[in-house]
Amino acid sequence: MISNHRPQRPMRSGRLFFRTYSSRGTRLPSLGTTLPKFSFPESTADIKSITSSLDSLLNSSKDVTIYGHLNRKPRKMSVNTFGELRDHNGDLTQIIMTPQSTSSELIEELRSGIPEDSICVTGKVQLKVPKAGEEHLRSWELIVEKFQVLNKSNEAASQLDKLKHSNPESLPPHLRYLQLRTPKLQDALRKRSQAANVARQTLIENHNFVEIETPLLFKSTPEGAREFLVPTRTPSKFYALPQSPQQYKQILMSSGFTRYFQIAKCFRDEDLRADRQPEFTQIDLEMSFISDSDQVGAVVEDVVKSIWEKVAVKPIYRPLGDDLLEEVKKTDNTNSLSFPKISYIDAMTKYGIDKPDLRSTLKFVELSKIFKSSNSRFPIVEACVLKNALSNGTKIPHSFKDNSKYPGRKPIVIGISTEELKTGWFEKFIEKGVLQFQEGASQGQLAEVLNVEVGDILAFSTREELPYENPTSLGRFRQLAIEEYPNHWRRKIKESSDGTIREVQDPSTLFVASWVVDFPLFNPPEEEGSERLQSTHHPFTMVKLEDYKLLESDPLKARGEHYDLVINGVEVGGGSRRVHDPELQMFILKSLLKIENHEELFGHLIQALSMGCPPHAGLALGFDRLCSMLIGSNSIRDVIAFPKNQAGADPMVESPTSVPADVLGNYHIKLEESKQS
Amino acid sequence: MISNHRPQRPMRSGRLFFRTYSSRGTRLPSLGTTLPKFSFPESTADIKSITSSLDSLLNSSKDVTIYGHLNRKPRKMSVNTFGELRDHNGDLTQIIMTPQSTSSELIEELRSGIPEDSICVTGKVQLKVPKAGEEHLRSWELIVEKFQVLNKSNEAASQLDKLKHSNPESLPPHLRYLQLRTPKLQDALRKRSQAANVARQTLIENHNFVEIETPLLFKSTPEGAREFLVPTRTPSKFYALPQSPQQYKQILMSSGFTRYFQIAKCFRDEDLRADRQPEFTQIDLEMSFISDSDQVGAVVEDVVKSIWEKVAVKPIYRPLGDDLLEEVKKTDNTNSLSFPKISYIDAMTKYGIDKPDLRSTLKFVELSKIFKSSNSRFPIVEACVLKNALSNGTKIPHSFKDNSKYPGRKPIVIGISTEELKTGWFEKFIEKGVLQFQEGASQGQLAEVLNVEVGDILAFSTREELPYENPTSLGRFRQLAIEEYPNHWRRKIKESSDGTIREVQDPSTLFVASWVVDFPLFNPPEEEGSERLQSTHHPFTMVKLEDYKLLESDPLKARGEHYDLVINGVEVGGGSRRVHDPELQMFILKSLLKIENHEELFGHLIQALSMGCPPHAGLALGFDRLCSMLIGSNSIRDVIAFPKNQAGADPMVESPTSVPADVLGNYHIKLEESKQS
Repeated sequence: MISNHRPQRPMRSGRLFFRTYSSRGTRLPSLGTTLPKFSFPESTADIKSITSSLDSLLNSSKDVTIYGHLNRKPRKMSVNTFGELRDHNGDLTQIIMTPQSTSSELIEELRSGIPEDSICVTGKVQLKVPKAGEEHLRSWELIVEKFQVLNKSNEAASQLDKLKHSNPESLPPHLRYLQLRTPKLQDALRKRSQAANVARQTLIENHNFVEIETPLLFKSTPEGAREFLVPTRTPSKFYALPQSPQQYKQILMSSGFTRYFQIAKCFRDEDLRADRQPEFTQIDLEMSFISDSDQVGAVVEDVVKSIWEKVAVKPIYRPLGDDLLEEVKKTDNTNSLSFPKISYIDAMTKYGIDKPDLRSTLKFVELSKIFKSSNSRFPIVEACVLKNALSNGTKIPHSFKDNSKYPGRKPIVIGISTEELKTGWFEKFIEKGVLQFQEGASQGQLAEVLNVEVGDILAFSTREELPYENPTSLGRFRQLAIEEYPNHWRRKIKESSDGTIREVQDPSTLFVASWVVDFPLFNPPEEEGSERLQSTHHPFTMVKLEDYKLLESDPLKARGEHYDLVINGVEVGGGSRRVHDPELQMFILKSLLKIENHEELFGHLIQALSMGCPPHAGLALGFDRLCSMLIGSNSIRDVIAFPKNQAGADPMVESPTSVPADVLGNYHIKLEESKQS
Repeated sequence: MISNHRPQRPMRSGRLFFRTYSSRGTRLPSLGTTLPKFSFPESTADIKSITSSLDSLLNSSKDVTIYGHLNRKPRKMSVNTFGELRDHNGDLTQIIMTPQSTSSELIEELRSGIPEDSICVTGKVQLKVPKAGEEHLRSWELIVEKFQVLNKSNEAASQLDKLKHSNPESLPPHLRYLQLRTPKLQDALRKRSQAANVARQTLIENHNFVEIETPLLFKSTPEGAREFLVPTRTPSKFYALPQSPQQYKQILMSSGFTRYFQIAKCFRDEDLRADRQPEFTQIDLEMSFISDSDQVGAVVEDVVKSIWEKVAVKPIYRPLGDDLLEEVKKTDNTNSLSFPKISYIDAMTKYGIDKPDLRSTLKFVELSKIFKSSNSRFPIVEACVLKNALSNGTKIPHSFKDNSKYPGRKPIVIGISTEELKTGWFEKFIEKGVLQFQEGASQGQLAEVLNVEVGDILAFSTREELPYENPTSLGRFRQLAIEEYPNHWRRKIKESSDGTIREVQDPSTLFVASWVVDFPLFNPPEEEGSERLQSTHHPFTMVKLEDYKLLESDPLKARGEHYDLVINGVEVGGGSRRVHDPELQMFILKSLLKIENHEELFGHLIQALSMGCPPHAGLALGFDRLCSMLIGSNSIRDVIAFPKNQAGADPMVESPTSVPADVLGNYHIKLEESKQS
């Protein structure tokens, strides 16, 4: 019997010691101890099914057999011994051994059990005596006749008992399987499975898509993010793991498939900031003979709405007009979008970011007619007012002025605490030369546009004409304001039935979706003096037809036929119409992006286009991110069974590892000698 | 306009030249040529939908718009111009331009079209004038009013016109997208998509499985086949791509998931014999709290039968008794198997292979009571008789005596062409000392057991007592006999309705399934003098409980709780009950397999088992192989969109490629200097 009476020790990041087996693999365990682990009666029920057929079970007094884990250490209380079983659904029931129901040996065995032992119990269901005040609740317990340990747990698991029932993250990551036994992560992975299934059913049943697997051993195309390489046994030849199935799916459009999708594994060897993973999953789709990108958007809306309806079981809203929301209803016209489209310029000027969180009504006021900026690189002056933010005598939140919260520049934030500041907040900045009044502009105009009152917080900043800074300093301020004031400036819900308007009760259940479109097709060259434009998304994105001639005259002004799907300020998907004309694609690769070896890198794609490839468009949804939103988590690690940590390691299996030189020799590679610094 | 009047050139294995663009990417194509490629009317129908609503379309004389590819070069015949459009379903229709229906410019444009141009046509449907003798057939054609080329094909595609309509393999592999446009491969990938969907629905809806993705960036575990390595930016650290999700799925069983599945990508860096791919797909599943392996088998049978029912739309049969078959009906009892179980020893002694093709009734006769073998390593003498194989004056097929058809030894094959041979075929071999009569054995006994007659082919061979040779020489002979005589010695079908027995009409539509069980758990050490046993399947397979004590006394005699699913002589899946007892698993790894670094390689799995991991069992189905059987193909390349060739290369994208030294430097590796030979 293993003692349970040690003091609870704090968790460390290192390995927990695991039980030392007496034999350490040198002796075959006896048949007597092994047999009961493999031979056991068939299960007749789980806790849910017993609860739902309780009356008939009580009447019949038939035996039931349940499997599960011991959920805590069994205890003897005067006469009887009490345990708790957790079944595969995470449901709990009390199990009781009495001297009448079973033998003293079995009672002893139950008492020596520790949490997380996996067990099989057979016995009779009886009604529980209700606690005082709970007489109206009917619950049951199991009188155990037979009891069998199917596998022992060990001391470490027993120590983890209490932690397990709180936050899975309080369990050490190398014991991921114990983290996964918690209700939170069980629910997360089950919902992820459901979401994948709903996405597939929607695409296959409603939209006639074909699921096609594309290769993971792909070709190195060093134009995007850093890739993972895979050495081969052919000297000096490498595969690369794909960053997305982009090229293969376009080639599928040239292969006669008109509607392709795949729930695809993708790989990026990026620095693992905040919440990224080196391998991730996307719902990837492409459609041919597409004359209007909205046809793709409509399919994607159906997928997203079906997932929210069937898995989140929550509505998804669209902003309607300025500050009202209405539940999205499915329409019969599958080619029209129901989430609104916001142009990139609108998003940047109103919200300071290309993925605005539209749960909030906060937006910016442009002050360029009133003020001139003194910095010619950032000529536009704009402001954001938080109405009544100081109303209850609160102060300006610290984060608004914390440099570390801003990736780049910071806006000026002023608490309008007095009548004097209300009318004269800008004077100091005029004096300092930060702002200048435009000719003919008046204070009256300013008051009218801004409408600042005592109790408001005012933030103002400058920005570029066409902002490539994303978010802008004021855009970042808006994000912080939404975090600091979760219940302020929320859009309200307009009931679709009767048009009544109501407040959102629980902001955590509110999902607001929109499309962002009309992105610039290119960004300016990264290096001074270079003429190499950068693709905003990727080099296969089609220009908007009305901007076609700008490709020659002023390509930085040309907008792409690209569309991002944004929910609650998170970019959950992005897609575009593609260039299916091989001559146009070559012009973009060669003359605009100036990719020298474009034939080597993309020759196969150009050739596939040149064989009568039909017009096509497609999109990819970030499935990990979508699932984490579904379960209300900020981290994609919660919806990935075995995530890597920020060092790219799997702490459970302890990968990556070193590999012997002779194995590397199979691939004609060797380790670089460590460099002298 | 591109000339079409060049002579047809024979295909070469090298690259086809592709159209040289005048500008080669230096000039933006004019808006006039680009616009029609992107702006085109919405499609109203495809060929199937027109055919099904033909009458109402003829009555309304409404315009229809269809998309597709030109299927052959349009031709002018006296007045009108005729083309053929192939739509996304691969259906064909004739399109006609008349001087009345449209302008001369459009007629000119259609005439300049070449095969595989992608097009959009609008016009009116009319009934076709039937050919003589086909007056009873009603078909239609399209009178074109508007015509638009959505993308040009090029000369190469036009040359491929004729090839395309025969066998996709006659098209060069670097033009995989053109191969994929053929009906055969369109059907193959669509069926694959359906099969995946049916498998998922069966597991999720009927059996409550959860689909969970496991990592592809895994840990190197150099115990199985050769793995692919993935260098990381941490010096001297590597991931490995998984050969299967085996360890992760067992750990999921320790994570509270009771029914897991995944349609998983797996990787093996093996020499690509015949029909293997470096990346392949399996339907991978695992179930916990399993007391009887048949529970897993029953789920797998439901998956396989559902796929055959819904995708192949063909029955799947099971051998009943000796040579009758009966269609499998689904039963309510999900825990009993309907495909029969054959033990490994039975399969080897009757059919000489562990994956017998049971469409055939051929089996072996053991002659050990009559003959002794002169070779003590191969003491057993056995024979296989092909009844009436020579009946029509045919000779012994060449392949039976062709050394190259046998991986190892070859049986002796005798055509019983005379009465003399019938009674005395063995005499020569007695003389040579190959065979000896057993004491007391008589010719009469031999005649009784073998029942050879004139016109039969007799093959005999020797084998080991417990054959590890697989197939045995006679087993390989049986495979050749089935190939050479596809319509002989076939099992017949017993109708389940009335018990009548009938011949199989089309052997290519016959599918016969069985389980093979009771494999030896270990194979003998590979090297002379070594004590390291080899796992027959993998080190996590549980021994049959009745053989438990043999693990200590005579482990080579112990049978594993492993089960293979075999259809038509192909192993389509394999699974087992696992060792969930950490002490037993350590004993196997350390004392039997003698894996020195088992803690380093499998410590995480042992630890996961030691945390009260419940009993579990699982199986994996080879999805590529299953799909190729579904479409009646011998090659998994036909059900993979972009397969690798036998050199492991993708001839379409031309991977693998070389990688610059500075990129390798990111991963702290460099190329090995080429070795001096």
